[in-house]
Amino acid sequence: MDLEFQKYSTLPKYAFQNRYQEFEETKHLSKEEKEAYYPFDKMEEECGIFGLHSTENLDTFSLSQFGLFALQHRGQEACGIAVGNNGKILSVKDEGLVLDVFKTIEEPQQYMGSTVIGHTRYTTAGDKKKYNFQPFFAKNEYDQIILSIAHNGNLTNAKQLRKELEDEGVVFRATSDTEVILRLIQKNLDLGLRGAIKATMEKIEGAYSVVGITRNKFFAFRDFNGIRPLVLGAIDENTFVVASETCALDGVGAQYVRDILPGEIVYTSDNEDGLQSYLVKDDCVNKICAFEYIYFARPDSTLEGINVHEVREKSGMKIWEQAPVEADIVIGVPDSGVPAAIGFSKASGIPFRPVLIKNRYIGRSFIIPSQEMREHFVNLKLNPIISEMKDKRVVIIDDSIVRGTTSKRLVKILKNAGVKEIHFRSVSPPIIAPCFLGIDTPTKDDLISANMNKEELRKYLDVDSLEFLSVDNLVDILGSPNHCFGCFTEKYPVKNPDELAFVDQGD
Amino acid sequence: MDLEFQKYSTLPKYAFQNRYQEFEETKHLSKEEKEAYYPFDKMEEECGIFGLHSTENLDTFSLSQFGLFALQHRGQEACGIAVGNNGKILSVKDEGLVLDVFKTIEEPQQYMGSTVIGHTRYTTAGDKKKYNFQPFFAKNEYDQIILSIAHNGNLTNAKQLRKELEDEGVVFRATSDTEVILRLIQKNLDLGLRGAIKATMEKIEGAYSVVGITRNKFFAFRDFNGIRPLVLGAIDENTFVVASETCALDGVGAQYVRDILPGEIVYTSDNEDGLQSYLVKDDCVNKICAFEYIYFARPDSTLEGINVHEVREKSGMKIWEQAPVEADIVIGVPDSGVPAAIGFSKASGIPFRPVLIKNRYIGRSFIIPSQEMREHFVNLKLNPIISEMKDKRVVIIDDSIVRGTTSKRLVKILKNAGVKEIHFRSVSPPIIAPCFLGIDTPTKDDLISANMNKEELRKYLDVDSLEFLSVDNLVDILGSPNHCFGCFTEKYPVKNPDELAFVDQGD
Amino acid sequence: MDLEFQKYSTLPKYAFQNRYQEFEETKHLSKEEKEAYYPFDKMEEECGIFGLHSTENLDTFSLSQFGLFALQHRGQEACGIAVGNNGKILSVKDEGLVLDVFKTIEEPQQYMGSTVIGHTRYTTAGDKKKYNFQPFFAKNEYDQIILSIAHNGNLTNAKQLRKELEDEGVVFRATSDTEVILRLIQKNLDLGLRGAIKATMEKIEGAYSVVGITRNKFFAFRDFNGIRPLVLGAIDENTFVVASETCALDGVGAQYVRDILPGEIVYTSDNEDGLQSYLVKDDCVNKICAFEYIYFARPDSTLEGINVHEVREKSGMKIWEQAPVEADIVIGVPDSGVPAAIGFSKASGIPFRPVLIKNRYIGRSFIIPSQEMREHFVNLKLNPIISEMKDKRVVIIDDSIVRGTTSKRLVKILKNAGVKEIHFRSVSPPIIAPCFLGIDTPTKDDLISANMNKEELRKYLDVDSLEFLSVDNLVDILGSPNHCFGCFTEKYPVKNPDELAFVDQGD
Amino acid sequence: MDLEFQKYSTLPKYAFQNRYQEFEETKHLSKEEKEAYYPFDKMEEECGIFGLHSTENLDTFSLSQFGLFALQHRGQEACGIAVGNNGKILSVKDEGLVLDVFKTIEEPQQYMGSTVIGHTRYTTAGDKKKYNFQPFFAKNEYDQIILSIAHNGNLTNAKQLRKELEDEGVVFRATSDTEVILRLIQKNLDLGLRGAIKATMEKIEGAYSVVGITRNKFFAFRDFNGIRPLVLGAIDENTFVVASETCALDGVGAQYVRDILPGEIVYTSDNEDGLQSYLVKDDCVNKICAFEYIYFARPDSTLEGINVHEVREKSGMKIWEQAPVEADIVIGVPDSGVPAAIGFSKASGIPFRPVLIKNRYIGRSFIIPSQEMREHFVNLKLNPIISEMKDKRVVIIDDSIVRGTTSKRLVKILKNAGVKEIHFRSVSPPIIAPCFLGIDTPTKDDLISANMNKEELRKYLDVDSLEFLSVDNLVDILGSPNHCFGCFTEKYPVKNPDELAFVDQGD
Repeated sequence: MDLEFQKYSTLPKYAFQNRYQEFEETKHLSKEEKEAYYPFDKMEEECGIFGLHSTENLDTFSLSQFGLFALQHRGQEACGIAVGNNGKILSVKDEGLVLDVFKTIEEPQQYMGSTVIGHTRYTTAGDKKKYNFQPFFAKNEYDQIILSIAHNGNLTNAKQLRKELEDEGVVFRATSDTEVILRLIQKNLDLGLRGAIKATMEKIEGAYSVVGITRNKFFAFRDFNGIRPLVLGAIDENTFVVASETCALDGVGAQYVRDILPGEIVYTSDNEDGLQSYLVKDDCVNKICAFEYIYFARPDSTLEGINVHEVREKSGMKIWEQAPVEADIVIGVPDSGVPAAIGFSKASGIPFRPVLIKNRYIGRSFIIPSQEMREHFVNLKLNPIISEMKDKRVVIIDDSIVRGTTSKRLVKILKNAGVKEIHFRSVSPPIIAPCFLGIDTPTKDDLISANMNKEELRKYLDVDSLEFLSVDNLVDILGSPNHCFGCFTEKYPVKNPDELAFVDQGD
Repeated sequence: MDLEFQKYSTLPKYAFQNRYQEFEETKHLSKEEKEAYYPFDKMEEECGIFGLHSTENLDTFSLSQFGLFALQHRGQEACGIAVGNNGKILSVKDEGLVLDVFKTIEEPQQYMGSTVIGHTRYTTAGDKKKYNFQPFFAKNEYDQIILSIAHNGNLTNAKQLRKELEDEGVVFRATSDTEVILRLIQKNLDLGLRGAIKATMEKIEGAYSVVGITRNKFFAFRDFNGIRPLVLGAIDENTFVVASETCALDGVGAQYVRDILPGEIVYTSDNEDGLQSYLVKDDCVNKICAFEYIYFARPDSTLEGINVHEVREKSGMKIWEQAPVEADIVIGVPDSGVPAAIGFSKASGIPFRPVLIKNRYIGRSFIIPSQEMREHFVNLKLNPIISEMKDKRVVIIDDSIVRGTTSKRLVKILKNAGVKEIHFRSVSPPIIAPCFLGIDTPTKDDLISANMNKEELRKYLDVDSLEFLSVDNLVDILGSPNHCFGCFTEKYPVKNPDELAFVDQGD
Repeated sequence: MDLEFQKYSTLPKYAFQNRYQEFEETKHLSKEEKEAYYPFDKMEEECGIFGLHSTENLDTFSLSQFGLFALQHRGQEACGIAVGNNGKILSVKDEGLVLDVFKTIEEPQQYMGSTVIGHTRYTTAGDKKKYNFQPFFAKNEYDQIILSIAHNGNLTNAKQLRKELEDEGVVFRATSDTEVILRLIQKNLDLGLRGAIKATMEKIEGAYSVVGITRNKFFAFRDFNGIRPLVLGAIDENTFVVASETCALDGVGAQYVRDILPGEIVYTSDNEDGLQSYLVKDDCVNKICAFEYIYFARPDSTLEGINVHEVREKSGMKIWEQAPVEADIVIGVPDSGVPAAIGFSKASGIPFRPVLIKNRYIGRSFIIPSQEMREHFVNLKLNPIISEMKDKRVVIIDDSIVRGTTSKRLVKILKNAGVKEIHFRSVSPPIIAPCFLGIDTPTKDDLISANMNKEELRKYLDVDSLEFLSVDNLVDILGSPNHCFGCFTEKYPVKNPDELAFVDQGD
Repeated sequence: MDLEFQKYSTLPKYAFQNRYQEFEETKHLSKEEKEAYYPFDKMEEECGIFGLHSTENLDTFSLSQFGLFALQHRGQEACGIAVGNNGKILSVKDEGLVLDVFKTIEEPQQYMGSTVIGHTRYTTAGDKKKYNFQPFFAKNEYDQIILSIAHNGNLTNAKQLRKELEDEGVVFRATSDTEVILRLIQKNLDLGLRGAIKATMEKIEGAYSVVGITRNKFFAFRDFNGIRPLVLGAIDENTFVVASETCALDGVGAQYVRDILPGEIVYTSDNEDGLQSYLVKDDCVNKICAFEYIYFARPDSTLEGINVHEVREKSGMKIWEQAPVEADIVIGVPDSGVPAAIGFSKASGIPFRPVLIKNRYIGRSFIIPSQEMREHFVNLKLNPIISEMKDKRVVIIDDSIVRGTTSKRLVKILKNAGVKEIHFRSVSPPIIAPCFLGIDTPTKDDLISANMNKEELRKYLDVDSLEFLSVDNLVDILGSPNHCFGCFTEKYPVKNPDELAFVDQGD
């Protein structure tokens, strides 16, 4: 009987639900118990956003469906849209994938408005309350929606701002920091829309990419460091699209125009055609999150002019240069480890073998009523083609190591398959600190690289060699140090949030 | 405005639902309209089956969940289990993925019986009636389940047998041919269980792999040609597993024992321990479906001793030999085209590039209320990384060409991405005839290779060269002509069914 | 085959649904077809209201349940409450009886606020929309309820006021005239609560008894003629109750204090304890609806000092004086005809016999898929004890005759039972005009006494004699001409509404 | 604070649910606590049954709806029908009133079969399981209903028979004794239908009136004492109706033919037209339950030739003769006390006054979250018109006294209304023993007349005089001693059941 499962019976029913923020629930567990508890440990992206404004008579309902569908990888648990149609804002949001939620809409025609914003949401476990689904909206006294926003990122001063607003009499309906942005804009609407957004940006701190609508206008804005991505495209000269990634522009047939600038507001106005631009500060430097390239973004997206797939392939080439090794085959952990493995193969000449098969139907957690099932469980997510790796020296390339639990299991799978040597390569630097800027990460206690040096970790994983891509090499690949490397360096482009800001970073 | 979408408004609401058997609904459409109607055209597998019998005190609930989860790729629309627990059979079956359906089970403990059978179902469009979900069961007069089976395959004389049984007074509750098997066994139970199965196998014709339980016994059997796969494994000496593919054995931690033989019944008996075997005919030759290797089975499965991934990789190497071409890169259409592309690359030295990105959240159909959305739609399933292919000579490798619609769209995507030359390679032979033995295929009218020769098709697809793997080369790769190649050759290992057998081949 | 049923097949599915306002649906029907269509024809009351304010720590949840339960006879189709609890207003409203709706409330404790208002609703057929259920409420921009009212009556200038308010930018959420009252108060809240109500009463015309709450106050007011009833009671010196009838005071154990005066506002205030009173006009004369005594109110209620049961009994005595007749027995049509029959018996010496048995489970309509069922249907509501009336001379006393359909059927029942002579007595005067002040009546075309004189009607009903209580005698019984007799005299205490006010008098 | 409510907080949530069989739940309570617990204490009827067979083309769907609607007073909690239509039996049964349940039937046409049986069910509190709803049915191995019955009564040897059947391998699906009857008939079907019923009647003991269908036949039978009523009627010469009471014959327009005899089977046969009759024993004497006349049956029903209303009126006359008293008015407790009060008035000359008003919307229980509400609750069911009884000497007539709780409350109501003297008359003899034959009664411990003599009870109720109709006078009124008077005399027409038969008498 494997030790780490003996305590299984004391775990909650949905024990295999993989969410980091269940601090309370799991903090009494030992390290090994936690491993059983978090079988799939990855950093988790928190949301994709999409906005569209058109004066053409387009099927904006389908377009927003396509755009959100292309952003599904940024959040699978809930989604929603808000549509401005003839001075009236309608909204639909629910738990489920984009195709599931859109399928329930009974009269799609009424959602074909001139302006649409949408959101795909990654929800943290304790936070499946519908009131935190996005887009958020504010109403007037007649129960009509007058303002709606969708947000990707995380504010670092949300708690304090919320308190200030509540002291002024503002009433909050939800617990997410997105509502702080909403209420600040709402409160300042007498400054005009642009003025209200500017006043809001001058108050809020942290990472935020936002799209929004009022009853007759569309807007989008991005924080002063441009931490979360936001791109602008056009379907025709009267139809603009703003989205988290360029793959959503491809999804709706839009041409990429440019990335929204840090500190920029784009908006429609009564007086002029097209989209207006306004820079709240004009000396901002873009410091987009490096992890977007490593893991979150889709490989076919291009952010700030850099294609994601290329970064991944280069990271494989670079880590070969950084830490060459003799081996028979190179395997990538699907999906994001695969391009890096191909890059490694290209650089090294060691053949790439796609022999770790991923079950595509993972998504929900298992309900396992008994204690004995762990060993069977290991192979469910990743199953090896044993004949291809038996007695081989294997380089295994993963995008990152977070808690170390998945990596340890993977090593066990490979050993069970009879692999002779294992050379583990992470194409991101060691993750030593949590993210406060829109990513769901474990606390420092649970980040394995915050607690073990490389040699300790190599022994723990029980591999023949272990290497991480260095931060310098990552800078080299990305072409510039102007990125957020906070989780690798513990140096963030914004000042650290107060401790309690952790509580609600669900957007 | 693209011609093929002008008629969109006359299509039914769920126009993008991809099912071949909607003959009536679509037969008035022109070829181009049908293309719009079936955007994802693949042959579709019809079901995975799983059975488990243990005299150990195991968590058979979780094991059957794991086993079916590993077989999810064989059917995603419904699933179910029947569990024998202390002389009582319980059953749960519903629409949805394995994890969704199991999640709804309120007291999993009562489903931990000594014997379990399960089924994952691919459902044809007109056939979402719950009474056709599997496992099927027969009851006694007190409403208790006494017999239950799960079936993968298709009978070719179901219609006639059903009529005969109805004339004898047997009442059918569903429309699937699986019920013919069930009622025949039920009717013959006075011959003993083995005798009843034998009598049934001597009546039914076609392809069938079946697992079943009575209130205290477990059984499995396979047709005389072994057309659909069925493998046997063991978790320990008292715990046997039978499943469609070996990946399900891996999923439950079972050792592979052997494939069930054509014409074999395995079963438990009152008198002897373990699993008994009985050959209804002893001169049977295995003729397993070749398409299992090309497209249906998981790459990590090994069927009749041949690993699926290896077949795919070899098919890529072989088609290079068969039809070499000068090119800059080779791309596989995900997922099953990728190993072939890697094989092609290995054989040819042309670099493999993973630059066609698949949206993993496809599954349900889109609701598109307007006519104009086709062009946007093209890139939603497969999005190219343009920078990687622009101005290149590209070999594109797909597993098969069915209607030709997906291929044509794919070519368009590549051309839009600025590809210079396109060399299309199908690693299956031309599909010229429908399958009567468990696969959901279009009629001959809609099989493009039944209606165009290679050169016509090359022009239609608008590519620079086009090649299909030859049947001889496929035989070569598989190591033997003893397979069903019916869809390539129109020669089936069983006599052709009467016309009406088409109506209900949903298992 | 009975003529009046031959057209049955052209009637809508719920043909036996008894509602007068289905003008469109039935106006093509002949008189006889309409008889089949409206088997239970009575005037219908439109709503009961209840309010309670207490600074004691009482179980106000149960009290409001009891109070509304006692007012159930005034409306059975929907009900609701709004509760002020610590500056927050909560509301529950739904289709169904009081006990059904309260049963669904999951945490009753949170509905134990210091102030409660409630409503029982009679809903007209076309008007089952939840947005018209009461209490109505107004919200502020943060989606919090700040004002809620429940209303019994009907405004005669609702249409015009609604238009005026909409022109000023007020947004309406429902179609009922109650919302006009709500929006007027809301709009005038800057005049203070009492000021806002006063301003509202100065605008609205018609009949209205209203109870309401703001987040910390309670109020009630009644129109200048006091047309619909409204009484005040007290449970203790800190607990006040306002209700449509005194039976609700009994239901909550409150002492009757007095009736609310016409033109009076009662309300709680910040500055003074207890309930304050303010007369908007001080020369108002109470003209309460006479029909409340004849049919609507419960016999155990006392309105404006006059007990309802006594009025009914006296009406039976009076009609004997007015139109004596020789007979063997006197029968009352249950329920409201019974006390009149007892009075008639007392005055005449003719024995009262309770031999017409009412089925108590009537309420919903029947679904009758065939045409032939009319004769069977007659006896379902009222079944005679034949042995008691065969060969007898019978006086049958009903409270009123509206369309004449029920009366005609009743006569048929009696004749089938072998009655020798039938002397029909209505203890209300002939109804010759519709009500605009809170009662659901047919149009004049369908009021039989507006279209036939007494002798014509006697022949139509096929009875030996027919008498109506005279208006003079009714005045005599009620002790004063100061009542609304509009439906008998076509003279209303308010000026007639414009035609369109009919559309929405559902409260 | 009233003592009897201090323990309220320890009562279960639905404390005001009035059901006797909650033995376990309430047996720790003191007498006074129980009073609070059972505010409405009456004996409760357990079910009405209805059957119809026609070879005419009638709307049997509507007819069965009408028939069951007329029997609604015999059971309000659930109802159902089984319909034989072209050799197929369909069934609908659900919680709710007849009109509610029929309203949910989507295709009424398919329920217009030639044979229908139906049931209205009074459900005991612990027994709301759908599997105990009626009609019960048996299926063959193809899941088709082949036999269905509806039952009113109670078997006294159900427990033993069930055990015998289970030992023979019969499987039971529900817990009601009705299933014992069903399974016995099913088991004996090889004797032919009549033979199977005869064999069943020879086994079962107790009270049973049953209607049933097979796929092409109709039948009804009644126990050897005819304890529960069952009458036969005809709509035309090809349409027969069997029902619990004649009011259901009136409801469907059927002529009364005769009562079904004790020990009689009526049934349809293949060989002869019309209904056949067979007497299983021919020396049976009818001993119908006397309480049917006193309380259960509808006043317009005539059972065994005796009209129910007449019995009630005579009981009032008789008790005047038995125990005259000087008084000012006589009041009947609605509904069944009213005819007796009128009889009493007729015999005595003391005026009858209908001044106790019953709330007609009682039915479900209240949810009362606090302890203090008892006093308010008293008047909710019965509210007095105080002006009519203040300072008067009152005779109050009730049908029966069971636990005494309602009576005690009623006395309190009258005293609060200022009544000068109270003379309480029960028009049934003292209830000293429980019923085993189809009525839901408390145990002897809770029957107040089993525990107090008349004078003790008079004091307990605090009235000036108290009288019960004597058994002799009841015999006199009914015209014969051949009735079941078991609850008055503890002498039953069948031998006493074993103790455990109490457990399941829910039909």
